[in-house]
Amino acid sequence: MAKLVGNAVVGQSGGPTCVINQSLVGVIEAAAKCKEIKKLLGARHGVKGILAEDFIDLSKEPTANLGVVAQTPSAALGSVRMKPTRDDCLKMFEILKKRDVRYFFYIGGNDSAETANIVNEMASDANYEMRVFHIPKTIDNDLKVTDHCPGFGSAAKFVASAFMGDNLDNRSIPGIKINVVMGRHAGFLTAASMLGRKFKDDGPHLIYVPEADFDDAKFVADVKAVNAKYGRCIVAVSEGIHYSDGVTVAERMAANAEVDSHGNVQLSGSGALGDYLAAMVKKGFEGKKVRVRADTFGYLQRSFPGFYSEVDAREARLVGRDAVRYATKGDMDGSVAIKRVSNKPYKVETFVTSLVNVAKHTTGLPRKFINKEGNNITEAFRTYAEPLVGKLPEAGRLKGW
Amino acid sequence: MAKLVGNAVVGQSGGPTCVINQSLVGVIEAAAKCKEIKKLLGARHGVKGILAEDFIDLSKEPTANLGVVAQTPSAALGSVRMKPTRDDCLKMFEILKKRDVRYFFYIGGNDSAETANIVNEMASDANYEMRVFHIPKTIDNDLKVTDHCPGFGSAAKFVASAFMGDNLDNRSIPGIKINVVMGRHAGFLTAASMLGRKFKDDGPHLIYVPEADFDDAKFVADVKAVNAKYGRCIVAVSEGIHYSDGVTVAERMAANAEVDSHGNVQLSGSGALGDYLAAMVKKGFEGKKVRVRADTFGYLQRSFPGFYSEVDAREARLVGRDAVRYATKGDMDGSVAIKRVSNKPYKVETFVTSLVNVAKHTTGLPRKFINKEGNNITEAFRTYAEPLVGKLPEAGRLKGW
Repeated sequence: MAKLVGNAVVGQSGGPTCVINQSLVGVIEAAAKCKEIKKLLGARHGVKGILAEDFIDLSKEPTANLGVVAQTPSAALGSVRMKPTRDDCLKMFEILKKRDVRYFFYIGGNDSAETANIVNEMASDANYEMRVFHIPKTIDNDLKVTDHCPGFGSAAKFVASAFMGDNLDNRSIPGIKINVVMGRHAGFLTAASMLGRKFKDDGPHLIYVPEADFDDAKFVADVKAVNAKYGRCIVAVSEGIHYSDGVTVAERMAANAEVDSHGNVQLSGSGALGDYLAAMVKKGFEGKKVRVRADTFGYLQRSFPGFYSEVDAREARLVGRDAVRYATKGDMDGSVAIKRVSNKPYKVETFVTSLVNVAKHTTGLPRKFINKEGNNITEAFRTYAEPLVGKLPEAGRLKGW
Repeated sequence: MAKLVGNAVVGQSGGPTCVINQSLVGVIEAAAKCKEIKKLLGARHGVKGILAEDFIDLSKEPTANLGVVAQTPSAALGSVRMKPTRDDCLKMFEILKKRDVRYFFYIGGNDSAETANIVNEMASDANYEMRVFHIPKTIDNDLKVTDHCPGFGSAAKFVASAFMGDNLDNRSIPGIKINVVMGRHAGFLTAASMLGRKFKDDGPHLIYVPEADFDDAKFVADVKAVNAKYGRCIVAVSEGIHYSDGVTVAERMAANAEVDSHGNVQLSGSGALGDYLAAMVKKGFEGKKVRVRADTFGYLQRSFPGFYSEVDAREARLVGRDAVRYATKGDMDGSVAIKRVSNKPYKVETFVTSLVNVAKHTTGLPRKFINKEGNNITEAFRTYAEPLVGKLPEAGRLKGW
């Protein structure tokens, strides 16, 4: 089989992660070493950059600087939230073809896989040989096929550590504390809040994820029960929690606010859900004095520097490198996925799955990771997630207390 | 001079920090080594523990565990928000006297220094010889006399790193981002947001602290000007920002909300100020589509584990140890303060200042650290704060962009 020689384009898409640049550098490193790729272009802000022909010549990046870029959070090429139309995809394909691009690597979530898939089909229809690869990235850990997603381990480490610290804070000055964690549809990141639990009374004591229906009354009762037991309560909630009818708590809150305040009060900001739940709990205590606070972790979860999971960083680099390896190996397109070969010792290998498998749907927290009551996470999740997160900071207590 | 021999009590008070347990362990270590202290008791939840005679015998704590406790954030003895009345102080003094307590160490901010001072005066009035020491602790860095406060460096490292990450995030997906930082009266912690700036266009681009008056219209104009220049804007605001009449933005917001919503909408939660400012900015763009988000860093700033400043940890340990050293050296009471002997190389020593000096008032960001416009922090602050924070994570950019 004749080798396919030409230029390559790489782009980054969607919400940043702490290790997305590891994947980018993995692509750059591997591309530099293979003869099939003449020039590697980086598209600024993903598909937007391709459409605007806004490219950087990545072949010229000095190696030493790439080491620093790799460990820098957020997308070094710039990211984008745009989901291209079919017309956009056609235009992109024409641009790629014009520039003799034979390799296209797109780092992102399932939307990025879909974009890659459409471009790939257009190339195929036009009989233009091009290898299109999706490189997985998401803190949500919601991609299908792969055992887990690069980006998740580092975000999970941040969330687990944040809850460790907040649990200590809460033990020191008792009260009820609600922390809102990213995750509109998948509860993996919120589930990670349990990884720092060490002592029996450590929080989070309650964990609510989008995979289990939320109920206001049950929630308040849960909090009161924990508070009665420990004199304090820490709660983890996914931003995407919803009622049994599918309506999210955030949506109902916004609807209530509109009626109550003639639309003059801003409730769609990022701290609103936590504050809303805190108010709900306060009300539930019916005048009894209780200290209720809410924090929303926000963007820190996906871009906090210097605190990544080493396993996550290594694997993010690996999927970048392997995308180039698979693409140049033969007539193949797809999404690079991770298979967990063994859990103890932890060992993985990559494989290729077709783009459509990853593009169509996302996945959520398996039922076995959620307790029966739907208000906590099981120990089975720890077995799954601990190797991805790596070592957490150590927290100690006085023996006397 | 005859040595004063008796028992000792140590307590922790106020908002936790990442290194407050270093000071506690410093006291435990030093007390274990000196003959004047027979038994060291830890009061659970500060003055509340003394009043309830809720003590732990710290002389029995195993050394190895103390190493882990020292690097654990938040108050291992439990903290308290209570400001004791004179009657409480009298009762505390009687309890201390009854238990033959001759040394009292209280780790906290200026309220703790005041409590220590009152107890000290009572002992003096009663001719009961007791050495009372305040050990400084606060992420706000607002204590008088001392060059800086243990606890600040670690919180500042968190805030600086958080802004580094958020700046990268914002560069990757441009928009307007407002981050609310702890600090009701002092802007030191918010000022620390500037320490991670490296490239010319790095955020935060605007920084608002309580030491400069806030103005809604000026704020919106500032944001629009930065956004026009860079196509994005990151803002740091202290939670305590206020208008020229002294009313805080949070107070005005709450007042507005009450009128608008018949009191049905909860606006006193922790995310409210950020959301309020975000809404203000959105409105200022008069219908022009713009992406405005707000995060409130919350408790993470004071209790995030595994990410402390090493200088801060070392100094927190030092002030704990030195409190015992000073107390057992001679007839002396006071607050342990830090003097910066030299800045390059960074070198400090401790000294004792009287309790009243620290108890009466707090201090704020010196004017020289704030720019003329009152919307940013000067490079002089970097010289002051950098040695306290230590090395920040490294962030890199592609050379091509």
